[in-house]
Amino acid sequence: MPEVRVIGLEGLPELGPGDDLGALLAEACARAGGLEAGDVLVVAQKAVSKVEGRLVRLADVEPSARAVELAGEEGDPRQLEVILGESAEVVRSRPPLVIARTRHGFVCASAGVDASNAKGPETVVLLPVDPDASARSLRERVTELTGVAPGVVVSDSFGRAWRQGTTDIAIGVAGLRPLRDLRGTRDSVGYELRSTMIADADEIAGAAELVLGKSAGIPAAIVRGVDVSGDGTAQELVMPADRDLFP
Amino acid sequence: MPEVRVIGLEGLPELGPGDDLGALLAEACARAGGLEAGDVLVVAQKAVSKVEGRLVRLADVEPSARAVELAGEEGDPRQLEVILGESAEVVRSRPPLVIARTRHGFVCASAGVDASNAKGPETVVLLPVDPDASARSLRERVTELTGVAPGVVVSDSFGRAWRQGTTDIAIGVAGLRPLRDLRGTRDSVGYELRSTMIADADEIAGAAELVLGKSAGIPAAIVRGVDVSGDGTAQELVMPADRDLFP
Repeated sequence: MPEVRVIGLEGLPELGPGDDLGALLAEACARAGGLEAGDVLVVAQKAVSKVEGRLVRLADVEPSARAVELAGEEGDPRQLEVILGESAEVVRSRPPLVIARTRHGFVCASAGVDASNAKGPETVVLLPVDPDASARSLRERVTELTGVAPGVVVSDSFGRAWRQGTTDIAIGVAGLRPLRDLRGTRDSVGYELRSTMIADADEIAGAAELVLGKSAGIPAAIVRGVDVSGDGTAQELVMPADRDLFP
Repeated sequence: MPEVRVIGLEGLPELGPGDDLGALLAEACARAGGLEAGDVLVVAQKAVSKVEGRLVRLADVEPSARAVELAGEEGDPRQLEVILGESAEVVRSRPPLVIARTRHGFVCASAGVDASNAKGPETVVLLPVDPDASARSLRERVTELTGVAPGVVVSDSFGRAWRQGTTDIAIGVAGLRPLRDLRGTRDSVGYELRSTMIADADEIAGAAELVLGKSAGIPAAIVRGVDVSGDGTAQELVMPADRDLFP
């Protein structure tokens, strides 16, 4: 029977700026029995952001008038100021909630700025500056240390329009094909398929979350048995403006 | 190491109205080594719709003026007429593409009407009338035949605002908790979590798609190792109007 396995990587230490995350992941993979050809390594965004030093102390932030307005009565204006700094565009707001388009083109709550699990209540975590570059860099380091070149996905939890709850999706990709393009293929009865592009990288990130979410001590997982050989970036998962029905 | 497994169920016959899908799934589970307590059975919507007879022959459809308009030059007005019949509201249209809110409250392309993999080019497949009821019914039948009561998810491929490609999500749920509610819990460093609800059922559906998508001959999969004990429906995954920032 065809099978996909998601194997959580435990035992990583609490991470901080400058830590060699690639080496820590390589060690964790070894403890999990080793990487195999075709494996995809999914790493939580927060782990990547921490080692890249993408942390802001709220004490250092001076909120603008707009941040004060967006915070409303419940929000922290300093946190909203950080969110505005990460936003290319505010798509929706209902104080203190902001849905923003980040400079990467991702539309998500708080422009990806996260107050949870940071180093102290007065610190927030930002998305990596270039999550695709983060994924490439981790891939190179893991390959160097293990001799196996995995696909790498940097994942984050995003809300969706019209649906409750978040799912993890891919914000950074290296060494795998993020989209499965079925255009022109035909299904078993011979008719043109409706769903022409499958977001494999997002489904892989979501599958990994089922393991990552079990404990804060599991910042990464191996996804084994998917066929995503190829290459690409998470930018391919951003809807191009000319196809966007929800600008 | 914590692990989740997705096991594809092969060997089901081509399905048609009235087939005992629950019995076929029970047999397929037996061939895969048997169901275990805590397993979730993910079944593709199209398989469910076919056995429930949710098929429409386009030759029997008389298109309205609005269907002709929405079809534009490229679409089939009869197919658009079926889509309108399944829609509570057209959310966006760019002929022949329609994004609609179905009577279930799902916002998706073509109101879930699918022309692929149907029984002939002149037949389309509709979503089940009540996918939660479909899931409950399959769960009861599988439990009756195997003695194990799995969670059941009926899955379909939905596009997303702002992102390219579809991911599979849950349109019907039985015998599992579709959302993981983290409100009030605190993470490992002790701060309030940002992401308060995780759409487990959607991540499970997406994980299953990684196996279902490998071949048209795999209409279902077992997802093993997730902790979603509880109960609920896919209606809980529909964003309530008062929380919806994208009405």
